[in-house]
Amino acid sequence: MKNAALLFALACGLLPASSAAQGPEKTLQEKLGYPRDAKLLIVHADDLGMTHSVNAASIHAFESGGINSASLMVPCPWFPEIADYAKSRPAADFGLHLVLTSERIYYRWGPVAPRDKVPSLVDANGYFHHDWPREARIDPKDVETEIRAQVARAMAMGVKPTHLDSHQNRLFQTNKDLFEVILRVAHENNLPVLIPRNWFADFPYLEKTVGPNDVVIDRVITMEPGLAPEKWPAFYENALEHLEPGVTEFVIHLAYADAEMKAATRERDTWGADWRQRDFDFFSSAEFRKLLHDNQIHLITWREIGRTMNPPAKTE
Amino acid sequence: MKNAALLFALACGLLPASSAAQGPEKTLQEKLGYPRDAKLLIVHADDLGMTHSVNAASIHAFESGGINSASLMVPCPWFPEIADYAKSRPAADFGLHLVLTSERIYYRWGPVAPRDKVPSLVDANGYFHHDWPREARIDPKDVETEIRAQVARAMAMGVKPTHLDSHQNRLFQTNKDLFEVILRVAHENNLPVLIPRNWFADFPYLEKTVGPNDVVIDRVITMEPGLAPEKWPAFYENALEHLEPGVTEFVIHLAYADAEMKAATRERDTWGADWRQRDFDFFSSAEFRKLLHDNQIHLITWREIGRTMNPPAKTE
Repeated sequence: MKNAALLFALACGLLPASSAAQGPEKTLQEKLGYPRDAKLLIVHADDLGMTHSVNAASIHAFESGGINSASLMVPCPWFPEIADYAKSRPAADFGLHLVLTSERIYYRWGPVAPRDKVPSLVDANGYFHHDWPREARIDPKDVETEIRAQVARAMAMGVKPTHLDSHQNRLFQTNKDLFEVILRVAHENNLPVLIPRNWFADFPYLEKTVGPNDVVIDRVITMEPGLAPEKWPAFYENALEHLEPGVTEFVIHLAYADAEMKAATRERDTWGADWRQRDFDFFSSAEFRKLLHDNQIHLITWREIGRTMNPPAKTE
Repeated sequence: MKNAALLFALACGLLPASSAAQGPEKTLQEKLGYPRDAKLLIVHADDLGMTHSVNAASIHAFESGGINSASLMVPCPWFPEIADYAKSRPAADFGLHLVLTSERIYYRWGPVAPRDKVPSLVDANGYFHHDWPREARIDPKDVETEIRAQVARAMAMGVKPTHLDSHQNRLFQTNKDLFEVILRVAHENNLPVLIPRNWFADFPYLEKTVGPNDVVIDRVITMEPGLAPEKWPAFYENALEHLEPGVTEFVIHLAYADAEMKAATRERDTWGADWRQRDFDFFSSAEFRKLLHDNQIHLITWREIGRTMNPPAKTE
C-alpha cells in the first residue's frame, strides 16, 4: 500500500492505526490512532498546588472542559488540596510539575528533600532560590535527590502521575546534565516527559540526549511576557486557527485574580494574578470551544501518550 | 512608708515606680510603671504568616489599633510577607509563634530544620504532624533543633522578636521537657516568654520550672470552642468589664473569611475562617475601644515587658 493511500485510508478511519506499521516510522499522532495530518492538542495548566487560587481556577476549568491536562507542584503548601482532588479523579491527566525554584518574594516554599541534602538548591534562608544566577552551581546530584523526593511524596500521597514536566522549564532549558536527570527519573517510572521539538533549536542537547523510546511532541505554545492584555484572545485565536498538524501542548497558567493570588504575585505582572485570570477567561470561553471545533482540533492527554510507550509485551 | 500609702501614691502617680522597690516584691504592673491595681492588657494576634488572609487582617488590625501585639509563624509559606512588614515597623511588638504542628488538611507546612534532623516532628510525608497522639514520642532534642532554626531564620530575615510563644501551646502544655526547651532558647536570646499564672493549676510543672528572672503574667484569656457565634461580643465584653488587675493577654486569631482562609480551614470550624472573621470584627469595633476606655484598661506590649527584664547594669 502506498503512503498516500495509507494516509487516505487512515484519515478516513478505514484502517486501524496498527496497520500503518508497514510504512515509514509512525508519527506520534499515528501512534495515537489519528492520521498523520491530524491536529492534536493538550490544553495543559501548570502550577497546580502553588496557591488555593490556582487550584480553584484549575479545578473549575478541568470540570468545565477548559483544560484536559495539568501538572502539580509537590513542594508547594497547597499540594495536599490538589492531591486530594487528583485522587478523586483517577482517570484525569495529572502529571508532576517538578519544582526547583521559589520565584516569588512574599510567598515561598522549599525542597521536599531534607535541606542539607540539596545544598545547591536552597538560599540562605532555606527556600529554593528565587532564580538561578549564571554563576549558581546547581548540582545535578542535588536535583536528582530533590525530584526523586517530589515523585516519592506525590506517590505516597496517592497521586499517580501521567507525565513529568518542569517548573520554569529549569530541567529542560538549563543544561544537558539536568535534562538527563529528568529523563532518568522518567524512565525509571515509565513516564513520558514534556519534550517539544520546537525547543531543539535553542537547546540542541535536548535532541542529542533523547533516546528512541522517548516521546517527542511537536511543539509547546505558551504566552510570553510582552503582549498587551487586550491582545491575548487574538494570540490564542491565531494559534488555534493556524495550528499545524502533529501534537501541540498549550502551556497555560490559571488562577483567579483574587486577594491571595494578587498578594502572592504582586512584585511583578508576569505570570501574576491578572495574567492567570486572563488565561482562565479565554480557556473558559465559548469562543475557545468554537475554535477547537471549527479548526478540527482533537484534544488528547499525556495518559494517551503514555500508552503509546507501553505496548503489550507480545508486540515488542 | 506604709504599703497602703505607697500604693495610693503610686496609683496617683505621685511616685516614680522605682521608689516602690523599698516595699514587698514588685508586681509586673509595678515594674512597668503602673500601680499595683492597674488593669494592663496585651491584645495579641496569633498565627501571622500562616496565610495571606491572616496577614492582611492582622496588619489591618495593627494599623487601626485593634491589636498591639502579635506573633509570627516562621515555617509557614506567608512568613516572608509578614517578615517584610515587621521590618517596616521596627517599633512594633512582634514575637515568634514557634510552630511544631501543621494542623490543617489541605494546606500544610513542615520544619525549618532539615527534616532528617527532626524525625520525631514530621509525618510520613515530611510535614509537621497534624496532631500529636498520646503515644507520639516527640523528642525534646528535635524540638530544640527546630525552634532554634525558626529563631535563626526569623533573625536572618530581619525580624527582631520581642517575645516567644507557641502555636497551639505545644511548648507550654505538653510536658516539662518541652517547656524547658522554650525557656532555654528564650534565656539565650534574652526574650520574655508567654507564661500566664492562670495555666499553673492545669500544668503544675510551669510554676516549678520558672526561675526568678522569668516574667510571669497574670492570665491569658482566649476564645475556646463551643460558644455560639452570636455570643462572641458578649464574651469579650464580659472579659473586659470584669478584667482583674495585673497583666492580661487576650490571645486572638484574625483573618478574613475569604476564599483562601475558607479553603485552608474547611475541614473544621474551630479556629476557622468564620471564627477569625468574628475576632477581627470585634477587635476592629468601636465597641472594643469604648470598653477599654470605660474600664480604664491600659494597653501594654511585650516590648515593654522585655525592658523590665533588662535593667541597666548599674541598678542590678
